[in-house]
Amino acid sequence: MTTAVSNTAFPPTSPLSEAERDRILAAVDAAFERQIGFLSDLVRCASLRGQEAEVQEFVEAALLERGYDVSRQSIDPTLFGRHPAFSPATISYDKTWNVLADHKPVATQGRSLILNAHVDIVPTGDPQRWQDPPFTPTRHGEWLYGRGSGDMKAGLSAAIFALDAIRAAGLELTAPVQIQSVVEEEITGNGAAMALASGHVADAVLIPEPTDEKLVRANSGVIKFAITIHGTPAHPREVSSGASALEAAMRLIARLRELETRWNAERATKPFFDEVDNPAALTIGTINGGEWIASVPSSCRFEGRIGFYPGDDPQDRVKEFEAFVASVAAEDALVQRCPAPIVEWVGVMHAGYTLTPGSEAEAVLAEAHASIHEPDNAPLEAYVMACYLDAAVYAVHAGIPSLVYGPIAENIHAIDERVSLLSLRRVTKTIALFAASWCGVRPAR
Amino acid sequence: MTTAVSNTAFPPTSPLSEAERDRILAAVDAAFERQIGFLSDLVRCASLRGQEAEVQEFVEAALLERGYDVSRQSIDPTLFGRHPAFSPATISYDKTWNVLADHKPVATQGRSLILNAHVDIVPTGDPQRWQDPPFTPTRHGEWLYGRGSGDMKAGLSAAIFALDAIRAAGLELTAPVQIQSVVEEEITGNGAAMALASGHVADAVLIPEPTDEKLVRANSGVIKFAITIHGTPAHPREVSSGASALEAAMRLIARLRELETRWNAERATKPFFDEVDNPAALTIGTINGGEWIASVPSSCRFEGRIGFYPGDDPQDRVKEFEAFVASVAAEDALVQRCPAPIVEWVGVMHAGYTLTPGSEAEAVLAEAHASIHEPDNAPLEAYVMACYLDAAVYAVHAGIPSLVYGPIAENIHAIDERVSLLSLRRVTKTIALFAASWCGVRPAR
Repeated sequence: MTTAVSNTAFPPTSPLSEAERDRILAAVDAAFERQIGFLSDLVRCASLRGQEAEVQEFVEAALLERGYDVSRQSIDPTLFGRHPAFSPATISYDKTWNVLADHKPVATQGRSLILNAHVDIVPTGDPQRWQDPPFTPTRHGEWLYGRGSGDMKAGLSAAIFALDAIRAAGLELTAPVQIQSVVEEEITGNGAAMALASGHVADAVLIPEPTDEKLVRANSGVIKFAITIHGTPAHPREVSSGASALEAAMRLIARLRELETRWNAERATKPFFDEVDNPAALTIGTINGGEWIASVPSSCRFEGRIGFYPGDDPQDRVKEFEAFVASVAAEDALVQRCPAPIVEWVGVMHAGYTLTPGSEAEAVLAEAHASIHEPDNAPLEAYVMACYLDAAVYAVHAGIPSLVYGPIAENIHAIDERVSLLSLRRVTKTIALFAASWCGVRPAR
Repeated sequence: MTTAVSNTAFPPTSPLSEAERDRILAAVDAAFERQIGFLSDLVRCASLRGQEAEVQEFVEAALLERGYDVSRQSIDPTLFGRHPAFSPATISYDKTWNVLADHKPVATQGRSLILNAHVDIVPTGDPQRWQDPPFTPTRHGEWLYGRGSGDMKAGLSAAIFALDAIRAAGLELTAPVQIQSVVEEEITGNGAAMALASGHVADAVLIPEPTDEKLVRANSGVIKFAITIHGTPAHPREVSSGASALEAAMRLIARLRELETRWNAERATKPFFDEVDNPAALTIGTINGGEWIASVPSSCRFEGRIGFYPGDDPQDRVKEFEAFVASVAAEDALVQRCPAPIVEWVGVMHAGYTLTPGSEAEAVLAEAHASIHEPDNAPLEAYVMACYLDAAVYAVHAGIPSLVYGPIAENIHAIDERVSLLSLRRVTKTIALFAASWCGVRPAR
């Protein structure tokens, strides 16, 4: 479901002149091949979880070159469980860090802005199934292929090159702007949590996730779990003396679909979610069980995630989930014969957010979007995204209007991920106009 | 189901004198603590598949010390697919070999014998779940605990110490006897297949698997498979665009239960199997799928085995199995959306066997068994074992009467595997009397 966003309620506070606007857009066009090259370099870095150092060093160098005040920010594990933005983590953060780049105007007018993008990517699956190698960015027509091209290295390139274009147009933003190149969005959100917990706030946040040039009106809360079941191994000649941990896991997964159905049914009363298909979306992402082809498996572990609604406390959903698992263990004849399933929380445990309609930030973005989509002047549409987004950190814990808006991409988290370069160019222009209007501009010194 | 074996039809051909019998039994008793020590040394060797070298070197030394003509026998992979006793293999056999030890009498009278035992063991599962470490043999009362203690290192010790006792009694067996310490029983049967394919045959085979002092009347044919399903990965926010390989695997496993039910139903017409519970026994031993907690899994692989009946050609069952998987792929709405499941054959692909009642070998064993179970003189019982046994190699491909008979053990392939030492002593005596009666004895030179 998408709804039209009003772009008339709040006129931009620092109207750009026609000439300034034209110079900015021309600058995006002029730099666009370089932007594709930059994006390709980002895609070449296989920035899987825990392996973000290479891409972050590259981004850091690019931001230093542009004259930003750049710093590295480590994730402080002592904050886990103490600051509500953090989710449980299962890895060491010794070799992973955020890169923060500040533009500080001499004299501040206008409104401050955070442009946030994550650099971590998800695994590729079998590379043989890709038409081109997943870390070899490849252009076919208007599409650039590669893992992370859409989610969300294109967005990071848009943020950086949008600000470049403003400078290339002879303008300086008159409010503080921070570019945040963060880690850990795909598993915990702890990169964004660290940026927020260390005091980085602004009057608005824009995150150019791949949203098909739409605005995210709301997202889901998400909790990520791992469940381990121990069975009783046995020889195939006496199966009934054992209890297969795999069979027990299959029973539990099947029963968890009931919980998904129950949580999905709640959407009828949830603003913005009533027409969302599968807002709770239980997915089982991994399973590993057994150690021997001809034994009844003695243990099985599976990991997954399930969603819920903005306004729900994730801790309440955690309790409900754990109680449900315990009830299956008490009721199911096979699961009953195994020790109690062990539930671990191994990733995002975060509330969803709603972008309340009517904010000035949204109006300024809608204006920028519409002006780029001339001559049809298509209005900005909003929709619900039933997954975790780092925007939730800023919206839930700091009340910052958080705009998730980015290019058209396909097959994210899948085979042959790709981003539309035509769309990326439009989005880069939209972000440039939005930043210029939101923050205000003056002629560069 | 167990049935009494007649022990009167064929009187032993070389009746032992009462004094000879008493000397043999006394020799088993006298050496029994040493036998337990030997068995404990075997258990200390963690002879998992592909890691049998240590235990085989130990067995080889023990057999050389006893004066046997000992040789190592490598498995010849060029025979796979050419000799019907071999099953598909998935590992290199570079570091794994059989040990064969021959007793060759100066003048042969009586009937030749192969005493066969496998030294490979299955994995332990989580060692923390064992009351004692699985490779630290530990005695509690009449039980010796440890992985492989029952399946079937106790049996190997019984074979070796039974022949020791005959010699200690001042007797020499008058027919050729070969002790075969073979590898690969637990996964392919290719150790026994190699022994047979290289021409080692005899008038009878005895394999002291842990059978609770019963005789195996028949076993199942078994095929071991691996099935890989590729799905279509997707982001949780658009689950319906993907096809979860894990969900597809769960559907396929559930449907395979129908095949198991169908094959089980055939037992009504199968000699000896009509009262066997679950003779086809589909077990899924391992599963591995997905690579990322928050993606729809792009692939899932599971391994398992299924049984059938003596007389069935395993190739026919392979075809029926593959056709069934293909039919599920054609019918199931989810599996349909995935590329065709890939079925691989990764272990035993072998027919079952029946030990035809009434053989002389069985009668001699029954006599020995009954005499050891005085004063109640309990007759030897026979039963069906619904799993693969190396005896099938000798019975199916060489028509050799193959006696599977060994000690009481519990928790084989499971946690806290253990063998009864009281039973092991009885079985060692039974094997000694059987060998002496079957092969014949003369006073040692």
